[in-house]
Amino acid sequence: MYARMLIDGVAADHVSAQDRGFAYGDGLFESIRLVGTAAPLWSRHMQRLTESCKRLWIPVPDTDQLGREVLAVTRDMPQAVVRVTVTRGIGERGYALPAASQPTRVVAAFPPPQASGDIYAHGVRMRVCDIRLAEQPLLAGMKHLNRLEQVLARAEWNDPAIAEGVLCDSHGRVISATMANLFAVVGGALLTPALDRCGVAGVARAEVLAACPWTRVGELTLDALRDASEVFLSSSVRGILPVRSLDERNYVVGGITHELQQHWRNLGFSMEQGG
Amino acid sequence: MYARMLIDGVAADHVSAQDRGFAYGDGLFESIRLVGTAAPLWSRHMQRLTESCKRLWIPVPDTDQLGREVLAVTRDMPQAVVRVTVTRGIGERGYALPAASQPTRVVAAFPPPQASGDIYAHGVRMRVCDIRLAEQPLLAGMKHLNRLEQVLARAEWNDPAIAEGVLCDSHGRVISATMANLFAVVGGALLTPALDRCGVAGVARAEVLAACPWTRVGELTLDALRDASEVFLSSSVRGILPVRSLDERNYVVGGITHELQQHWRNLGFSMEQGG
Repeated sequence: MYARMLIDGVAADHVSAQDRGFAYGDGLFESIRLVGTAAPLWSRHMQRLTESCKRLWIPVPDTDQLGREVLAVTRDMPQAVVRVTVTRGIGERGYALPAASQPTRVVAAFPPPQASGDIYAHGVRMRVCDIRLAEQPLLAGMKHLNRLEQVLARAEWNDPAIAEGVLCDSHGRVISATMANLFAVVGGALLTPALDRCGVAGVARAEVLAACPWTRVGELTLDALRDASEVFLSSSVRGILPVRSLDERNYVVGGITHELQQHWRNLGFSMEQGG
Repeated sequence: MYARMLIDGVAADHVSAQDRGFAYGDGLFESIRLVGTAAPLWSRHMQRLTESCKRLWIPVPDTDQLGREVLAVTRDMPQAVVRVTVTRGIGERGYALPAASQPTRVVAAFPPPQASGDIYAHGVRMRVCDIRLAEQPLLAGMKHLNRLEQVLARAEWNDPAIAEGVLCDSHGRVISATMANLFAVVGGALLTPALDRCGVAGVARAEVLAACPWTRVGELTLDALRDASEVFLSSSVRGILPVRSLDERNYVVGGITHELQQHWRNLGFSMEQGG
């Protein structure tokens, strides 16, 4: 039996109750898909983690060390999702930053989500969430540990036939799904919402933007989303997921979606190959 | 040596790294001031905790049990601050609520903050924070574990002479301080900001509102705050703190502040008696 969780490099599964991750959600995480020992989006994950640590004044972890720990916890797992959590570490009571932060890092392996090839071929059903994301430019884009909005959004529905929900901001602009980014083909152009006021800038989104540099990053209204000819989700864990319906509106799986799924297979991901 | 921390009733100081409090900030907390075995604002703390649990669909903890645990961790402490944390408990990876949540409760005793009688007599210095609070009505008022905005706000200054910062929302309306609520006497009327879009509805604020039912709860602009004749902070941990300055503006400690400090002493709090 190998350790499936390392905390600061040691096999463990508990953190201090005085960790600021627990006290205030004062930290960040990455959810990384592995295929054997390969993590095709690794460098993007480490880039986002590094940049976000700097924005929050959390000391940047050693990414080589994180890489070794990810391999250790996934040893002998043919497929895995690894959650890497980095917090500001243990602190006194109170919001003020510790004089010298000693970040906590948790590296934990999980089995990948079960997904039939069917959803990759035919798409997932979605709904529009009632909650509106608050706009906070100083936190926008980061995968930080303050995720109550996503918890409340995901709690809006129980129907297992609905895989995801569309999240809008307080102005009614489409931002993302609850655990994936969203792309739409509107008037023939590929479009994804800007994430400078709220939302998480996913690493799979970054990969799509690099593969399709002509993508427009901007405003996407709900009306435009409903009129789109093609809609798909991007997720570092699940890859490229076609959207087959949004409430009463149905979509067909389109050509750009297929091309990006092929791109994902070329990267080495196997979830879209039914394997 | 007595346990100063109980986790689910057992002496311990670590929580599962799969606790949703650590994973997503999916929980709530209360910071409760004790004088000996008395917690004068106890019922208000338990009321807020209960109401907030319901808003987040977290099973409400047994408040009698919490009371016993608070007394256990503060045994033989003449003065203490107890932090009670309640989370949704351990969960699988992903935002969806567990089918049956088993909340985690952490009851931890801390020494009270050191405060000279001087600040109660002469007041504290404040600044205006640059960060603007995001507006999320579904989370407003609760003392939940998503506190990155407060962490960033408190990180804006290092000067130990500045005790607190004024937080505004994105429309420039004054909301609160970083770890206290704020009251101002404007045109002879006592006023405190409405907290239906952001901010934490403090139990000390609720006590002030009950003691001064004529208080206006509404909009407070920065200009009105600067023009106020009297400004004070309310905090369950620190009580009624006069504000002596906001950036370049100076205030005198006023009559309503003195009356509320007397009210606090009558409740049994001793921090305002230099003891």
